[in-house]
Amino acid sequence: MKIFQQVFQLKERKRGFHLITGEVTYALPQINEINTGMCQVFIQHTSASLTINENADPTVRMDFEMYFNKAVPENDPDYQHDDEGSDDMPAHIKASMMGSSVMIPIRNGRLAMGTWQGIYLCEHRNYGGARSFVVTAWGE
Amino acid sequence: MKIFQQVFQLKERKRGFHLITGEVTYALPQINEINTGMCQVFIQHTSASLTINENADPTVRMDFEMYFNKAVPENDPDYQHDDEGSDDMPAHIKASMMGSSVMIPIRNGRLAMGTWQGIYLCEHRNYGGARSFVVTAWGE
Amino acid sequence: MKIFQQVFQLKERKRGFHLITGEVTYALPQINEINTGMCQVFIQHTSASLTINENADPTVRMDFEMYFNKAVPENDPDYQHDDEGSDDMPAHIKASMMGSSVMIPIRNGRLAMGTWQGIYLCEHRNYGGARSFVVTAWGE
Repeated sequence: MKIFQQVFQLKERKRGFHLITGEVTYALPQINEINTGMCQVFIQHTSASLTINENADPTVRMDFEMYFNKAVPENDPDYQHDDEGSDDMPAHIKASMMGSSVMIPIRNGRLAMGTWQGIYLCEHRNYGGARSFVVTAWGE
Repeated sequence: MKIFQQVFQLKERKRGFHLITGEVTYALPQINEINTGMCQVFIQHTSASLTINENADPTVRMDFEMYFNKAVPENDPDYQHDDEGSDDMPAHIKASMMGSSVMIPIRNGRLAMGTWQGIYLCEHRNYGGARSFVVTAWGE
Repeated sequence: MKIFQQVFQLKERKRGFHLITGEVTYALPQINEINTGMCQVFIQHTSASLTINENADPTVRMDFEMYFNKAVPENDPDYQHDDEGSDDMPAHIKASMMGSSVMIPIRNGRLAMGTWQGIYLCEHRNYGGARSFVVTAWGE
């Protein structure tokens, strides 16, 4: 069994949901060398997150941003952690609702996602800056 | 270290939360050949999802359906992605809240879940059709 | 490729969100023997969960508890599963929103988390009792 790992960064994206499938496979081209295996993408932050969802219509990603802004409101007077801006505590909560990693099987040298699946970077801060990731793939 | 992988389909289930632990272990009987390892189940869709929760009382699964229907309402006029039916955009959102995979350790040839844990297929569409999965297990 | 696995218990914590990064690495010291790999922590329960979030300011963890108590209310008359206390069904729902496992890459013998990341035990019951975990690490 082989294992490959790469750390990579993506420059700042604006708040919202962004497709990064291409950036992930570009960062770890050795995915192609694995016939049967697994790939994990991990984000090293607590106010941005990763999920898998529809890769086609961009309005899906806009509706994600709209929904989570309603579901996790800013400026709730009950927040105690509010020194870093009104978008900060909601960003932490959204990050845990989505999760800090995605795991995708590898089959015949490719990520075995469905036709409509893509990897989303979920940027929950207004100005989150560049983000760091670790992508790891293993198998044979 | 060994690795096994299988693609399988499940026929359409009605909208709601369904126990599929038996279907998963049936699809990959080689789990029995792994003493210490890991199993991942991945769903290749963006409007259905997977989670682990209580395997006993069916009212838990009914309450999941009730709760998420309230938490992610249909027909929000702010949805832009609404061409595929009122259940479509909420299905995408619920799918990311639950996640597209579950990961379970293998111990002594069995999924090392707790007594009350089972794998749920979360069908978020009214008519989702058959669903495709990839189950992968590795270890020694 | 090596694989290590350990079952461990943590004594009862009060309802809320608790940092357990130290307990996890203490339970599986062989993480240090892996140069490039992956670590999974799994909780064998359906009313407590695991997530990764900010490891510094304790008010973040208090705000998590506050937020999820609002987002998943107790005593909704529409709950059918209500025999085990008003905190029970909300605990199951919160557990699936957070998830039953976290996956962290290993790099140079250490969990490759970001500076501000830590592992949270999310205890959703008032009196959840001791909790059992399986931690597994693999790589080379």
